[in-house]
Amino acid sequence: MPYEFKTTRRVAFCETDAAGIVHFANFFTWMEDTEHAFFRSLGFSIHEGTEQQHVGWPRVGARCEFKAPLRFEDEVEVHLLVKEKRSKSLAYRFIISKIERATQRNEAARGELTVVCVAWDDATKKMKAVAIPEQIASKIEVAPADAAV
Amino acid sequence: MPYEFKTTRRVAFCETDAAGIVHFANFFTWMEDTEHAFFRSLGFSIHEGTEQQHVGWPRVGARCEFKAPLRFEDEVEVHLLVKEKRSKSLAYRFIISKIERATQRNEAARGELTVVCVAWDDATKKMKAVAIPEQIASKIEVAPADAAV
Amino acid sequence: MPYEFKTTRRVAFCETDAAGIVHFANFFTWMEDTEHAFFRSLGFSIHEGTEQQHVGWPRVGARCEFKAPLRFEDEVEVHLLVKEKRSKSLAYRFIISKIERATQRNEAARGELTVVCVAWDDATKKMKAVAIPEQIASKIEVAPADAAV
Amino acid sequence: MPYEFKTTRRVAFCETDAAGIVHFANFFTWMEDTEHAFFRSLGFSIHEGTEQQHVGWPRVGARCEFKAPLRFEDEVEVHLLVKEKRSKSLAYRFIISKIERATQRNEAARGELTVVCVAWDDATKKMKAVAIPEQIASKIEVAPADAAV
Repeated sequence: MPYEFKTTRRVAFCETDAAGIVHFANFFTWMEDTEHAFFRSLGFSIHEGTEQQHVGWPRVGARCEFKAPLRFEDEVEVHLLVKEKRSKSLAYRFIISKIERATQRNEAARGELTVVCVAWDDATKKMKAVAIPEQIASKIEVAPADAAV
Repeated sequence: MPYEFKTTRRVAFCETDAAGIVHFANFFTWMEDTEHAFFRSLGFSIHEGTEQQHVGWPRVGARCEFKAPLRFEDEVEVHLLVKEKRSKSLAYRFIISKIERATQRNEAARGELTVVCVAWDDATKKMKAVAIPEQIASKIEVAPADAAV
Repeated sequence: MPYEFKTTRRVAFCETDAAGIVHFANFFTWMEDTEHAFFRSLGFSIHEGTEQQHVGWPRVGARCEFKAPLRFEDEVEVHLLVKEKRSKSLAYRFIISKIERATQRNEAARGELTVVCVAWDDATKKMKAVAIPEQIASKIEVAPADAAV
Repeated sequence: MPYEFKTTRRVAFCETDAAGIVHFANFFTWMEDTEHAFFRSLGFSIHEGTEQQHVGWPRVGARCEFKAPLRFEDEVEVHLLVKEKRSKSLAYRFIISKIERATQRNEAARGELTVVCVAWDDATKKMKAVAIPEQIASKIEVAPADAAV
């Protein structure tokens, strides 16, 4: 059962800043993009939920520690690992690395996202936390502690 | 009747790129932000339309000529002028300048946005162009040809 | 001696996403923008350091907890408090609130940024952590524990 | 000799706005990203120039006409065609399409970018337009008028 997923990307010019490196806020969208690709790999769109139930996944927590700068045109790997699976929420951790060669990764950052499964109350139009649909939950597993040490 | 509007802003670090200057795509969001402030100054939110009618304003054309770079912490003036008012669309032109001193502006860019007034068909959920609500149209005038020469 | 700073801003349309709310990555640039305004309020540009010494402030850690969504045109207050002042680094915490009325703030998020003072080695062109210039350090104080409870 | 280049991408969530569609400013960065990939395909990095000469390519003009909205997770093709090659500048046109099926593209937008080749004067630190290095110019050709009609 899947507990990890990897995407690769190349740093775009618009992601750099006047310090000549990737602006730190982009690391958060890279994490999110990887989560969305993980969902697609399971057969779902994160913005739609399942056919039975329309759910959403607002972020309730995000963090990142930055270890080495990334620059324009660097090739980057974003490695998602499922850190926690609760009835109504998921937490991921991420290792963001510069791809130096086919076999070498230099870690640039480590991050985490915590997301909550919500549905909209038709009457109040407000979001409330709901159990992750079984169809989704049954496809996601927590990564072993020693994955990607 | 209003035909122009000005906003000022300070260049944010995340708007710069590795060339040390404002990334060109930001000029387009600055133009849009100024259009939205212009609408607020008339008593409307561009995303809501009027109380009677929910309309939206998708962009159908955008252009910008860049004349001088802007840098982190520069103070910038964005000057909107109504270029054209048709039954279902508006066109604006913009002069984007660096504020050097209280009395001096150095032009950095000139741009244009063309936007169309649309409503959503409840049945098909598709947008279609509609006449600009009179309540809005009656408050907007085309700028004289010699404004902001 | 200053230990806090506040900025206000209005949510721009380009900061929203298809969920109809502010995309979470923008909260991080809002925190940074407020840090930069705090530096300007002390008489410095964060990107230049002092006249004597060119220093930079790369981010080494960033986190945010999201409590309530923000929407297009919401007025937002970003309240910076100095959390920690070490010889070579600063940590800030931030309270991001929706301004409901002149006297009412509804908390939307709490965040933190940790930044390190660096200089560039002329020979190697690499950054290394250095002591915060006295001219800057002497102007910044840690916020009392009960500030902005 | 190359006169066109294509990239494909998937719409990221952070690229959408509260209207549920891709925010128009992103089309400009997509065009630029494709130009940069075109340069890489020729063996150059646009931000570095050639080994002999460090040149840059500031944008002097950008425009886009928007024809159909794009949404989260749409697959998009960005087709670059060289429109004009002058001694010191290049102009590209772009056709941005939604990839409906392997064999079907639905046009979403058409754009143009005009870029100037510049070098930095070591004394004044200012940019000035220079002839495109022969090593680069010799690899780029203007697209025939009937390409991508």
